Amino acid sequence: MAPSLKMFFFLLSTLSIIPPSHLQHPLDSLNPNEFVRVQAIANQSYPFSHNNLTFQYIGLNEPDKQPLISWLEKLNNLPSPPPPPPPREAFVIARINHETHELVVDLSCDEIISDRVYEGNGYPLLTFEEQIDANRLVFEFAPFLASIAKRGLKVEEVVCESFTVGWFGETKRTGRIVRVMCYYLDGTVNLYMRPIEAITVTIDLEAMKVVHFKDRLMVPVPKGDGTDYRESRQKPPFGPELKRITVVQPDGPSFTIDGGRVRWANWDFHLSFDARVGPIVSLAAVYDTEKQQFRRVMYRGFVSELFVPYMDLTEDWSYRTFFDAGEFGYGLCAVPLEPLRDCPANAVFKSAFVSGRDGMPIEIPNVFCIFERNAGDVMWRHTETMIPSGLVTEVRPDVSLVVRMVSTVGNYDYINDWEFKQIGSIKLTVGLSGLLEVRGTKYTHKDQIHEEVYGALLAENTLGAHHDHFLTYYLDLDVDGESNSFVKSKLQTVRVNDQSSPRKSYWKVVSETAQTESDAKVKLGLDSADLLVVNPNRRTKMGNFVGYRLIPGSVAGPLLTADDYPQIRGGFTEYNVWVTPYNKSEKWAGGTYVDQSRGDDTLATWTSRNRRIENKDIVLWYTLGFHHVPYQEDFPLMPTISTGFELRPANFFENNPVLKVKAPNVNIRWPNCSI
Amino acid sequence: MAPSLKMFFFLLSTLSIIPPSHLQHPLDSLNPNEFVRVQAIANQSYPFSHNNLTFQYIGLNEPDKQPLISWLEKLNNLPSPPPPPPPREAFVIARINHETHELVVDLSCDEIISDRVYEGNGYPLLTFEEQIDANRLVFEFAPFLASIAKRGLKVEEVVCESFTVGWFGETKRTGRIVRVMCYYLDGTVNLYMRPIEAITVTIDLEAMKVVHFKDRLMVPVPKGDGTDYRESRQKPPFGPELKRITVVQPDGPSFTIDGGRVRWANWDFHLSFDARVGPIVSLAAVYDTEKQQFRRVMYRGFVSELFVPYMDLTEDWSYRTFFDAGEFGYGLCAVPLEPLRDCPANAVFKSAFVSGRDGMPIEIPNVFCIFERNAGDVMWRHTETMIPSGLVTEVRPDVSLVVRMVSTVGNYDYINDWEFKQIGSIKLTVGLSGLLEVRGTKYTHKDQIHEEVYGALLAENTLGAHHDHFLTYYLDLDVDGESNSFVKSKLQTVRVNDQSSPRKSYWKVVSETAQTESDAKVKLGLDSADLLVVNPNRRTKMGNFVGYRLIPGSVAGPLLTADDYPQIRGGFTEYNVWVTPYNKSEKWAGGTYVDQSRGDDTLATWTSRNRRIENKDIVLWYTLGFHHVPYQEDFPLMPTISTGFELRPANFFENNPVLKVKAPNVNIRWPNCSI
Repeated sequence: MAPSLKMFFFLLSTLSIIPPSHLQHPLDSLNPNEFVRVQAIANQSYPFSHNNLTFQYIGLNEPDKQPLISWLEKLNNLPSPPPPPPPREAFVIARINHETHELVVDLSCDEIISDRVYEGNGYPLLTFEEQIDANRLVFEFAPFLASIAKRGLKVEEVVCESFTVGWFGETKRTGRIVRVMCYYLDGTVNLYMRPIEAITVTIDLEAMKVVHFKDRLMVPVPKGDGTDYRESRQKPPFGPELKRITVVQPDGPSFTIDGGRVRWANWDFHLSFDARVGPIVSLAAVYDTEKQQFRRVMYRGFVSELFVPYMDLTEDWSYRTFFDAGEFGYGLCAVPLEPLRDCPANAVFKSAFVSGRDGMPIEIPNVFCIFERNAGDVMWRHTETMIPSGLVTEVRPDVSLVVRMVSTVGNYDYINDWEFKQIGSIKLTVGLSGLLEVRGTKYTHKDQIHEEVYGALLAENTLGAHHDHFLTYYLDLDVDGESNSFVKSKLQTVRVNDQSSPRKSYWKVVSETAQTESDAKVKLGLDSADLLVVNPNRRTKMGNFVGYRLIPGSVAGPLLTADDYPQIRGGFTEYNVWVTPYNKSEKWAGGTYVDQSRGDDTLATWTSRNRRIENKDIVLWYTLGFHHVPYQEDFPLMPTISTGFELRPANFFENNPVLKVKAPNVNIRWPNCSI
Repeated sequence: MAPSLKMFFFLLSTLSIIPPSHLQHPLDSLNPNEFVRVQAIANQSYPFSHNNLTFQYIGLNEPDKQPLISWLEKLNNLPSPPPPPPPREAFVIARINHETHELVVDLSCDEIISDRVYEGNGYPLLTFEEQIDANRLVFEFAPFLASIAKRGLKVEEVVCESFTVGWFGETKRTGRIVRVMCYYLDGTVNLYMRPIEAITVTIDLEAMKVVHFKDRLMVPVPKGDGTDYRESRQKPPFGPELKRITVVQPDGPSFTIDGGRVRWANWDFHLSFDARVGPIVSLAAVYDTEKQQFRRVMYRGFVSELFVPYMDLTEDWSYRTFFDAGEFGYGLCAVPLEPLRDCPANAVFKSAFVSGRDGMPIEIPNVFCIFERNAGDVMWRHTETMIPSGLVTEVRPDVSLVVRMVSTVGNYDYINDWEFKQIGSIKLTVGLSGLLEVRGTKYTHKDQIHEEVYGALLAENTLGAHHDHFLTYYLDLDVDGESNSFVKSKLQTVRVNDQSSPRKSYWKVVSETAQTESDAKVKLGLDSADLLVVNPNRRTKMGNFVGYRLIPGSVAGPLLTADDYPQIRGGFTEYNVWVTPYNKSEKWAGGTYVDQSRGDDTLATWTSRNRRIENKDIVLWYTLGFHHVPYQEDFPLMPTISTGFELRPANFFENNPVLKVKAPNVNIRWPNCSI
């Protein structure tokens, strides 16, 4: 969760002030110029020379929805001159003289137009710099050095990481503290497999001093052999080598990227980036060939929050209950993608900017890749044998568009795919890879273990801790417009009692339109229902409401008790599906201030107001999850495991939107190629 | 479900007697020679000149498991001379003089070694020929022709299809009957969108005569406009055209196919084909780089049965409750795959043979395609920012092997993928496409409908009937050998009561080893548990049992009441997961004789014996399903919707089996290619 200083300089060295090469879209991420201006504007109000000011978060203050939609609609008429866009604003969360300030900066007139001190519970996103400082500070703390020496470890091989501390019912506020845990390198890069257990250093980030230290007990550090995953360090025997394989597009890709705007096949959407949530897809519209126009599907969508609670209740572990977006920044933790490995050969890459603690822009190169996916799947087919004149076979292969970003939050790598399909679906997939958090232990064989160890023994001295991952997606679907409803098409068994039918049962659909927020809360797995966001003001020619269906993949729900502090903080995971009335301030499901939050400002608390959500601008929230019982295959690094869900047209179109897609005529023969 | 006569001749014309070009494997599908010999041997015992004999099913009588495994093990030692393989046998279900015979034919000595008359409930697979005959017969039935004329339809544009009738509690046996329903072409090939409702002709297949006729009411036939899916018939505007995209493998594919045996990366398995179940994967073993040997994963796997009940209780529909494998033959209904459309450019195709009613072999060309899938996914990755010497990034792209077959059972196309992954997983996916069964109706708008119509109005006069699809997979996993156990690793919430921890709860794993069959029945969606097949006699170095985990995708369970006749017949869908002790005769989950079965010989009845399944040769059965509420996008042909599941190593390997796979060095630049 904190990069080394060296990487930091690497990132800074690639900084360049890039003037916008395209007309800026109101939803574009802040560009480097804008970060610099925010910094300068803040300096004017709070001169850095005698104010203690750190920028914890700088992001686009998205324009109000209605004015933006009006402006976009006006633009469609190609007026001359074009109407001015909504003003660019930045939303800033800064720590100023040990207070949390929320600033709104108007970038058109270079002014702070709002400056509010937040006095509630919780603290902002952590910056990389303060984590690096904290991680380094321990090495100036004599008792820590003594603990390292006591264990016979070489201090120059120790690296440390900052962990958020959560909240466990304390009434007093502790200030912004982290717990620093340390790991051992000494010949491997896989620090996470070599925890130096039971040394906990608590550091006050703002005083930048150690406020608590505990060396609880001595536990063997797992050995480094077999933990390194670098190719250069592997010894035979190696895995089987496959023959070369790649994707080719002789005429280039089918998509166009114009600034933040991406167009491909029948899709048109805007892509931006945010330090807190990572990728944001906005204004997604799909072209209706019959109606000869683009139709709105989703106003804005992104990963709102993650909740990663560990189930290890040993003293040094029990607090580990992380919120990767609100505490560490899902976008801030995004990493450059490797061409030909993270993304296939036909991918195009885009960079994005985040800000450092000092407000200066930092480029994350290749943070997105965009590519057409040619997995060999079938979009539709039928073989008809009943036609007297002969066999009829029609098949259309599936090609889709993928937008990918990887966020590496410390040990875990989250591979995020937004996949746009010609049939009008958006498929969201998250793949988990990277490294487990493991606890060092004296045990070297399962048979030695007769106590609860809260995990599985993966290797000698190495327990893979049980934990969960929940990702909550914010999905402001605007199906053919903002006024939508959430409908549960419940499949209900009907018992047939009369003798008229040889059947005794069937299922029917009972449609329930959610009127208030409590109607829309869904725990998946219990009932059978199709879940739809419909536009009750728009019907197809057949009279069905136009809509989109949410199709879950594998499902998981929380197993912590509702009163457990992390579960209170992560209350947005209680249901897999929630629907709220659109409210611009409700976007971060765990609240704005998640570090040490107390659960008083989450999606769960907002929806307890039970507001009306029928035929209104509504937002769909979807939580998927994994319960992770580690297996030895996850050692020393996890093969990707994926899950996801689909947003699929449901009576949105009058009929199959890809019926009239022509079969491709691709017959590219390799022998005519040279390498 | 029955091909036209023309296609039939097409298939016959491609027949050739192919001598085996490789040493035959005991699990190879029957080859054409063997079909011919079965026919000849049967003719000897039951001369066709004066016996009424039809072959309903001819397939490999798989060798007994233990002798086969012993033989394979002996072969591994490369003995000279090699020991003789188990004898080749065919299993034949024939109707002989109106009785159902089960014959076992020894193909080494050309003898019937077993001939048993089946006297229980139910009838064998239907043949194409008898369905074609029945479909044609209606055109010689005057009342039917009158009904067609009454509706103003051109009889030459009418095509008919045979439907199985099911069983609804009748005590008397009706003999082998089908109901014939008809459809209208007249300018389209999409007959299924143009049902001629409410004319039902019941035909006795063995007498080949009409035994019942009902013309219940007149219903408009939906119009043909907008139903045709042939590319040649589409009118603009067309869907967006994408730029060309293909996969290339300059050095050819990485897999080798030697008869039925496929080898790719770390996988080795046998592939065969059966008229009833379609593809069979046998002897799947994965190479353990550390142990330097292949290790057994699955002895045999296939789709055992499908259950497709419709929820339309109108008189002409209520009986429609189909079992696509046991009634129609999932393999018999397999269709030739289209190169470059059903399968990508790097696919290799294989044919297979089934038998006709007369026992003669019929080739299904291109029934399988095998290809390496390059979807652009990531097999594993990590970016490490904490190393003082610099950023470390390691990424391995994922390439997997897919074996695909498509079965078109009348209207529906089932796309079956067996995907083998380098991480040691087998992922099974089924995609549904093709055509809905729709009921013709007078309604042209939803607002006109004030009665239960058991479906959704998709187009004028067109109701898409509610229905389910369940597929039950037979998975004889032999994890490192036959003696396995089924373990539920239940995740249980533990409330922490003492004050020692700031936490109030966590979840722990409670492992339950199933002792008898009832322990192993699982309805998914209710509890959180990892489901494992383990070898309790084999442990990793850490002491964990080696195993494989079943990871479900989306889940669905039956909604019919348990006493509803179709649900009795389809009782194998009651649970998503079952485990039985290996029993060679237990392979077809709906029983051997599914047509008009009474549910007395299904997976559900077998397991009611509650046999012991701990540390034994066990079989895992997995049922996935879709509840299908049709939407207008499904008209006139459905875009593919997919689901599946994964069998993933769980402590099978000592550590990540693909850690030492080298990153590919593929940098093929297109400009050097010509088309």
